Amino acid sequence: MADYFLGIDLGGTKILTAVADEEGNILAKIKLPTEEHKGKDKVIDNIIVSINKVLNKVNFNYEDIVRMGVGIPGPLNIEEGLVYQAPNLGWENVPISEILEEKTGIPVNLENDANAAALGEKWFGAGQGIDNLLYITISTGIGGGIIIDRKIYHGANDGAGEIGHMVIEPNGPLCGCGNYGCLEALASGTAISRMGKEAVEKHQNTIISELSNGNLDSIDGGIIAKAAKMGDEAAKEIWVKAGHYLGIGLANLLNIFNPEMIILGGGIMKAGDLIMEPMQKSLKKYSFENAFNSVQIRQAVLGDEVGVKGAIAVAIGRR
Amino acid sequence: MADYFLGIDLGGTKILTAVADEEGNILAKIKLPTEEHKGKDKVIDNIIVSINKVLNKVNFNYEDIVRMGVGIPGPLNIEEGLVYQAPNLGWENVPISEILEEKTGIPVNLENDANAAALGEKWFGAGQGIDNLLYITISTGIGGGIIIDRKIYHGANDGAGEIGHMVIEPNGPLCGCGNYGCLEALASGTAISRMGKEAVEKHQNTIISELSNGNLDSIDGGIIAKAAKMGDEAAKEIWVKAGHYLGIGLANLLNIFNPEMIILGGGIMKAGDLIMEPMQKSLKKYSFENAFNSVQIRQAVLGDEVGVKGAIAVAIGRR
Repeated sequence: MADYFLGIDLGGTKILTAVADEEGNILAKIKLPTEEHKGKDKVIDNIIVSINKVLNKVNFNYEDIVRMGVGIPGPLNIEEGLVYQAPNLGWENVPISEILEEKTGIPVNLENDANAAALGEKWFGAGQGIDNLLYITISTGIGGGIIIDRKIYHGANDGAGEIGHMVIEPNGPLCGCGNYGCLEALASGTAISRMGKEAVEKHQNTIISELSNGNLDSIDGGIIAKAAKMGDEAAKEIWVKAGHYLGIGLANLLNIFNPEMIILGGGIMKAGDLIMEPMQKSLKKYSFENAFNSVQIRQAVLGDEVGVKGAIAVAIGRR
Repeated sequence: MADYFLGIDLGGTKILTAVADEEGNILAKIKLPTEEHKGKDKVIDNIIVSINKVLNKVNFNYEDIVRMGVGIPGPLNIEEGLVYQAPNLGWENVPISEILEEKTGIPVNLENDANAAALGEKWFGAGQGIDNLLYITISTGIGGGIIIDRKIYHGANDGAGEIGHMVIEPNGPLCGCGNYGCLEALASGTAISRMGKEAVEKHQNTIISELSNGNLDSIDGGIIAKAAKMGDEAAKEIWVKAGHYLGIGLANLLNIFNPEMIILGGGIMKAGDLIMEPMQKSLKKYSFENAFNSVQIRQAVLGDEVGVKGAIAVAIGRR
């Protein structure tokens, strides 16, 4: 019998679990709610249920699985299989590998979610065949995975890749991390929503207010993209600003890494040219010609499956 | 007979050449002026003269040398042994490896000077025993060498490590590269001299003017450090500002790389605590606790020999 693997993408709202062969081809998959509000034990039960269900679909037992890869949001100790902190799950110091191994007998490899996504795109998505790339996800926050020589670069204690907290405007807006002017505070979904609210609050002549039915808290990248596509100047300006800063952040990374490829993922990339055009403009302005000319900028292609495919790559040992 | 190697540090003003054993122990060394103003052929003659002289000292012939490593300022193609551009030498597209191999029969490995210095400190200096480190040189400009898994990370076309052109203050001062607010424009020797001149020009109450005998062009890090040590407030403020921005730059790198060690070299580091204290303060403020607590910040220890020792490491194949 061939070798089979499990990939588990454990997110704050859903668990995506898949069984795959040694080439990473998915034989079956399943999506369950995380139910993180019911506590750690319930989440772990849900992971086990997702494993049982997906194995059932293909008539496999635990013994048929060589290894499982698990992608988790938050700082980890990969060697010890320990989750230091996963704010989205309310977890602190959870020895998740040991727990899952005890319950299933299947060896576990952990990876943080941004790194897992980077591996997903590298092995099964936009980065196939590329040895050195950066994967950057732009959604509520901005995260990154650094792939060097086809492997994740983890750093001294698995903390590498925090590119969202690169400071590029020290007098800029407050970031969730407590500092000011991080890339995440200037170009993430959170930053874009904030700029949308500010535009409405300043009584700028903008249809953002109308599109949000006057509910400031509902203003997000989708609404601001819609407004911009309808010709709204304030909305367009927000995308130009976010794209400008994203371009500076990417230029810094280009000058530091001279990578073969940068892959951009996350919900904010759905805005397409609204953010890509100003990004490209400042990327070109702020990066060395040599690095700019040799890099390919690609949008991620795996969508919602990026995490689980990355977890499969981790399980197979491609990490 | 054991294996012997040559290391050559080719700078804009001097050529430092050394012969070493396979452990990197220097048996003999020599320093000659580069005479870059006399043109490329004269510089190459001088390199050959330096090789001949240093080999003479130990009674070696070309045949006794396994390989030579050459450190050169400027963008290179390492595989082809080609110097694209070395502004300090006035060189463009010089196939230096081929030229030196033809003249000596000794195989040549090239490396850019910042990377060579990083290797020097890694193998023979402050970074011994460390697998993942960043070397940063702060002098006229700011350059860097990235060591991952004991090797230089070169990037897609040998352009990685341009950390001096990380933009961290987009509305900041003009950089030599044409952009605004690069780390180099905020914390290099050039930036510090510029701030010193500005302080004098603004008729600030500062002894920098006196120490420079009214010659604005002579104002450099040494003078501003001296003024600060004499209690001059304007001078102290300059170091606080440069250290602050250096700390932001290093914090960004800490969050991206989570390295085991950062080694700081270059003439500006002679200012010691004047720049290190404000640097440490903003490094702590802007970096993740995890990365901050696990990194060692060290000053370079090899001084003027860092380049030639790095070139020896390159020759030995440690790169």
